[in-house]
Amino acid sequence: MRIYFTFEPRQDLREPLVEEFSQVDFVFQSGLTTEELQKADVVVTYGEDLNEENLQYATKLKWIFVASAGVEKMPAQAIIERGILVSNVRGIHKTPMAESMLAHILAIKRALPWMYEQQKKCEWSKKVKQTELCDSTALILGPGAIGSEVGRLLHAFGVQTIGCNRSGQKAPHMDVMVSFDKLLEALPKADIVLSVLPKTRETTHLLKEEHFKVMKKNAIFMNFGRGNLVDEQVLIRAIKADEIGYAVLDVFEQEPLAENSPLWTLPNVIVSPHVSSHSSRYVERSLNIFKPSLVKWLDGETDLENVMDLSRGY
Amino acid sequence: MRIYFTFEPRQDLREPLVEEFSQVDFVFQSGLTTEELQKADVVVTYGEDLNEENLQYATKLKWIFVASAGVEKMPAQAIIERGILVSNVRGIHKTPMAESMLAHILAIKRALPWMYEQQKKCEWSKKVKQTELCDSTALILGPGAIGSEVGRLLHAFGVQTIGCNRSGQKAPHMDVMVSFDKLLEALPKADIVLSVLPKTRETTHLLKEEHFKVMKKNAIFMNFGRGNLVDEQVLIRAIKADEIGYAVLDVFEQEPLAENSPLWTLPNVIVSPHVSSHSSRYVERSLNIFKPSLVKWLDGETDLENVMDLSRGY
Repeated sequence: MRIYFTFEPRQDLREPLVEEFSQVDFVFQSGLTTEELQKADVVVTYGEDLNEENLQYATKLKWIFVASAGVEKMPAQAIIERGILVSNVRGIHKTPMAESMLAHILAIKRALPWMYEQQKKCEWSKKVKQTELCDSTALILGPGAIGSEVGRLLHAFGVQTIGCNRSGQKAPHMDVMVSFDKLLEALPKADIVLSVLPKTRETTHLLKEEHFKVMKKNAIFMNFGRGNLVDEQVLIRAIKADEIGYAVLDVFEQEPLAENSPLWTLPNVIVSPHVSSHSSRYVERSLNIFKPSLVKWLDGETDLENVMDLSRGY
Repeated sequence: MRIYFTFEPRQDLREPLVEEFSQVDFVFQSGLTTEELQKADVVVTYGEDLNEENLQYATKLKWIFVASAGVEKMPAQAIIERGILVSNVRGIHKTPMAESMLAHILAIKRALPWMYEQQKKCEWSKKVKQTELCDSTALILGPGAIGSEVGRLLHAFGVQTIGCNRSGQKAPHMDVMVSFDKLLEALPKADIVLSVLPKTRETTHLLKEEHFKVMKKNAIFMNFGRGNLVDEQVLIRAIKADEIGYAVLDVFEQEPLAENSPLWTLPNVIVSPHVSSHSSRYVERSLNIFKPSLVKWLDGETDLENVMDLSRGY
């Protein structure tokens, strides 16, 4: 059994793994090579290095462990045809992402960007409007692992949560649920509109001009899912027309965001360079998900944690 | 019965009050005058306008309602001698202050100050170290109404809480309690050291050089209580010596902070101009505390909410 990591975990994380699974040949090598791919039974990857072409070399490959949540860049069709099992680290992002989202929300409510600017001028001033998160209402598009974690934290702050997904079916930490087709009616209630939706055909341009028009004038709109959710021109128009109060964006239609995008400089827009899931504890957590699956795999089992359905994209 | 407000609540908050208590003569007037003070049975004040001199005119005064938490500026001795009842809005600050503290903590952990700077340069970069609040430990000096509220929120983020007060007696939302004299032993465990202590003789310069020396090198030190907690020169030395990771200060020995204070420009220091308790909902909440007390007062009762012991300073 040969397991090929296309990235190199830190020494202190790698050693216990090698020790625990002494029957396995591990290869840790940053940057994928077709040579190693040919020999691998299992590939552990961030999911951005596999493509239709190099996958042809992976003749022994039976399982891909993706240390990431999105798989848009993976050659889905080829993987499905080859019958390769794919599992990922779904849920791994929930803690850093939920913390990032709460950080942004609270920073805005408690006027931190203003405060930082005052400090640069060595200026003692109390002339700023600060509001509270408490008693507000948040609409969460995509209350899955991450969205529910945000809901849990928002509840602690006394926020009412409205979850919104395709079916309108119950989700944890949501006070109310609505389906995508009732979104327009729910939006006017929300002080915070927050998406963590994955990229699928259904979520592409789900939000349109009409949706921004019915949002509260001081609503904070946050996209921490995927950039396909809204046509950036539609979003820019809504911001310029003061239809919303703030936009906090961690994802974009094109990444990196073009240097000349108006989003960089529009007032009340926060550009987060798709780093909300980053954490110094990321690899540690990935390996903690990988290990129990590897134990099962070595026993010949295939009901691993977080097996993906590539045909649906998540 | 004449009640003298030395500030003017918004029309929409003032009207229901006047209506509800039609038997009372209300005076709303920004800025205290001895003329009005002479006629007042009750004074509602932010607590900064009363002094030993003007109090002599307040011959009818029996109750001072302070729409603030600190009373350092009040003429304590004269009030005690005159037997005037003082009650305040203890706890009113807990929501905005706890939200401010969480905002600052999360902003640091999730690198928001860095992100804002990148955006100004229109620079897409992911090169930043972000950590997590989850699984860290916070030491809370003064786990009263505000400190406990911070503890409650920190718990939601998976933070271990150590409370520290004079006696070491139990406080809500604290996993462990220590007394002031065990502080030195508890400090090395804390990733966040947070004070909301009031100004008293005991809290003055409670933190000394030795305390900063035992803190974690990356600890976030936050003073949201009163500036007397630590000699600013001691704090500045600790920051310059990299004994702590961050200092977030909402209170100072002298306020406003002098324009030439090194705290404005030291790296990893956040200056918040004593605004952490500010909220657009402040007066609304004060009146919600005042009203039930006024009902009691009109019935001749004196066991009001939040009666203060001025001899202890809180």
